[in-house]
Amino acid sequence: MSPVFETYLKSYAGFSDSEISQITSLAITQHLRRKEFLLREGSVCRYKSFIVSGLLRVFGTDSDGSEHILQFCPEHTWTLDAESYDRQIPSACNIAAVEDTEILLWRKSDFDKLLVEIPLLKTVAEKLISSAVYNSRQRLLTVLSASPEHKYNDFITKFPDLFGRLPLRMIAAYLGISLKTLTRIRHAQLHR
Amino acid sequence: MSPVFETYLKSYAGFSDSEISQITSLAITQHLRRKEFLLREGSVCRYKSFIVSGLLRVFGTDSDGSEHILQFCPEHTWTLDAESYDRQIPSACNIAAVEDTEILLWRKSDFDKLLVEIPLLKTVAEKLISSAVYNSRQRLLTVLSASPEHKYNDFITKFPDLFGRLPLRMIAAYLGISLKTLTRIRHAQLHR
Repeated sequence: MSPVFETYLKSYAGFSDSEISQITSLAITQHLRRKEFLLREGSVCRYKSFIVSGLLRVFGTDSDGSEHILQFCPEHTWTLDAESYDRQIPSACNIAAVEDTEILLWRKSDFDKLLVEIPLLKTVAEKLISSAVYNSRQRLLTVLSASPEHKYNDFITKFPDLFGRLPLRMIAAYLGISLKTLTRIRHAQLHR
Repeated sequence: MSPVFETYLKSYAGFSDSEISQITSLAITQHLRRKEFLLREGSVCRYKSFIVSGLLRVFGTDSDGSEHILQFCPEHTWTLDAESYDRQIPSACNIAAVEDTEILLWRKSDFDKLLVEIPLLKTVAEKLISSAVYNSRQRLLTVLSASPEHKYNDFITKFPDLFGRLPLRMIAAYLGISLKTLTRIRHAQLHR
């Protein structure tokens, strides 16, 4: 199984070797090519995913096909559509690869079993859910309140590593500003 | 203690009478006058709150004092700033009363004790956190993607009871649109 995931588990919390084997034994490895979808709007999210390497994005689409990006998920993070996964209902969003990506997947039934059998995994899962709550409140506040310049600077400060890996149109779709505005901000900063 | 809260607990999940007594025995009743604050930006959120009657709003403020409303919390819902409460760090947002409001408060140490002693309360708390995750993802998607008209119609459909209780400026601050735009949309709809 992936040494990256083992290292992650060990550094995140003090899992025993047997717990790590138990968790990894139920994981399915999958490779996504750039632009390939892990989840499509209208489908049920059947897996919890850990990103070993690469980069995914979670996004909704407008009737005109334009994207609104909710989240970027780089290596060593988890992703899913929580509501679709928990309730096994069609998802309102898409998850697709920005780069060639390697992920580990757990079927919901398998992961639910692990949560019961390994209390520490349940604690970790609860922490991840709490972080999701904190991050989305913070993100909503930024989207609602900040000026385009502030949004852009906030993004660079928070995600310095992501910046160079993303096309500008995706950064604009994440910030909720037009590509034109984003280009204008970047030009102004370069000329300062 | 509040019969409203007892009825809520009984209808939400099958709590026993002794569990209900245990939960309510640690609650503190507080009355907030309209415009009064429950939590101020920069303070630590020390309590979990259940709204018995009335209406609260959770909001951030800009440097120019303008409000950005994250959430409205009507009767029979819970509120707090999760990150500030969990980590006991200063909050990035405010919670204040839109109407005269009656709430029940639990100190974090008391509520943590209840969560350990009453497994069903832990299950209910987890469900509430999951709902918060679903709602904030949905809200973020709407804020990022929808037109002002769509945002307004979505609000009326989702919160038909709130609409008449809120000043227009608060609805605009929740939708992330200007008061002028909101007024224009309402006029256009009335004249159709």
